[in-house]
Amino acid sequence: MKVLIVHAHPEPKSFSSAMCATAADALRSGGHELVVSDLYAQHFNPLASAVDFSERRDANYLNYALEQRHANGAGSVAPDIRAEMDKVLACDLLILNFPIYWFSLPAILKGWIDRVFTSGVFYGGKRVYDRGGMRGRRALVAATLGGREHMFGRGAMHGELNGMLKPLLQGTLGYVGFDVLTPFYAYHVPYLDATERTEILVRWRETLAHLDSRQVLSMPSLEHFDDQFRPLTKTELEFQPVGDIDG
Amino acid sequence: MKVLIVHAHPEPKSFSSAMCATAADALRSGGHELVVSDLYAQHFNPLASAVDFSERRDANYLNYALEQRHANGAGSVAPDIRAEMDKVLACDLLILNFPIYWFSLPAILKGWIDRVFTSGVFYGGKRVYDRGGMRGRRALVAATLGGREHMFGRGAMHGELNGMLKPLLQGTLGYVGFDVLTPFYAYHVPYLDATERTEILVRWRETLAHLDSRQVLSMPSLEHFDDQFRPLTKTELEFQPVGDIDG
Repeated sequence: MKVLIVHAHPEPKSFSSAMCATAADALRSGGHELVVSDLYAQHFNPLASAVDFSERRDANYLNYALEQRHANGAGSVAPDIRAEMDKVLACDLLILNFPIYWFSLPAILKGWIDRVFTSGVFYGGKRVYDRGGMRGRRALVAATLGGREHMFGRGAMHGELNGMLKPLLQGTLGYVGFDVLTPFYAYHVPYLDATERTEILVRWRETLAHLDSRQVLSMPSLEHFDDQFRPLTKTELEFQPVGDIDG
Repeated sequence: MKVLIVHAHPEPKSFSSAMCATAADALRSGGHELVVSDLYAQHFNPLASAVDFSERRDANYLNYALEQRHANGAGSVAPDIRAEMDKVLACDLLILNFPIYWFSLPAILKGWIDRVFTSGVFYGGKRVYDRGGMRGRRALVAATLGGREHMFGRGAMHGELNGMLKPLLQGTLGYVGFDVLTPFYAYHVPYLDATERTEILVRWRETLAHLDSRQVLSMPSLEHFDDQFRPLTKTELEFQPVGDIDG
């Protein structure tokens, strides 16, 4: 299996970085082919802007998605974006490894998605969800957070954590076609002692050894929607495409 | 009223930029005091990193939130962050005006939140939600998107749009104490003709003229949780803190 880990923590000694190193070791030991994009270490530019396009479809008006599509067609994608795209397109499994900032991604990882998941390759027109460009591949989120597990879930203070990460789990990874595995969360990380941290890393290594039995999150299927993405029938109006993620 | 608009679109001729200009004009005409942070124009750095701290609490291990708290106490917050913090702390109404990228914020605006909503001032310990640092102030999201309105809602392809933006609406703006007004969404923007765009701008101007009657989203209240943020009683376990946002 070809695996790409995208890692996004500014501190190399952080627990998130330890999770990245543990995953790299576990996957290499398991005989898998591994590539790591360490976004802080490689000074990845997270800013979607006009400088991403050396030749413009429309030099007077920047529509970022249309310029992405044009650049893909013209073979003029910026080298730093192209390099990351090629890594993603080559992988069987994408692991996003990051600390949760404000119940979502650190900006450097959000910018990686904004710039790398280009229109025309990862998605476009009707090529979304189970027709997205990455269909047949798997994605796994591995996230650390300061909050405790009891702060999340139905009736809990913040609601479901999968619901907070819905823009990533469904709106991004599911949207471009990945089979999105149930995320691996490490709670309360800044307050754990060494023993507790080791226990999580053991559980993380176990998780990586048994990915085939890990549950895939349910996503909308285009079969249930018409050409305008309207639900097809009254019965399908009852269909709850995001039951596993909301809450 | 003091209003801060934070605007995050790379194209000055975009519809999102027109919404920003319309809001600026409407609010100034209404006698309000206005400040605009145009993040692309001011080349705002979205990257939370060690260089944000001129003197470190712990030079060997970067815990970003703890360094934020230390910098606030020591008065050593980086000048570009301090300038934005001061704008937010002075405002009665914060408007975030942006195009939706991947069902969430453009990275430059996510990084503005990561760096500006500092621990120790905006939140910290039990100072969250209705005890957050920005309680008593209001926040309004004004977002453009390519998707059509029928793609969102219960049973629709992507679920509720407020649910997709929950990390921002509840997990960020609500979390730091803002009264979060019902967002203003401009759907299908790249495909609208000039008349339709004008109609949206008229509706946007109307919205800004009647903010006092705009619904505030429901948020968790600390009254319903104990010191560990556990729901207080069985009755309150049924409490759905995010009923307006999930879906």
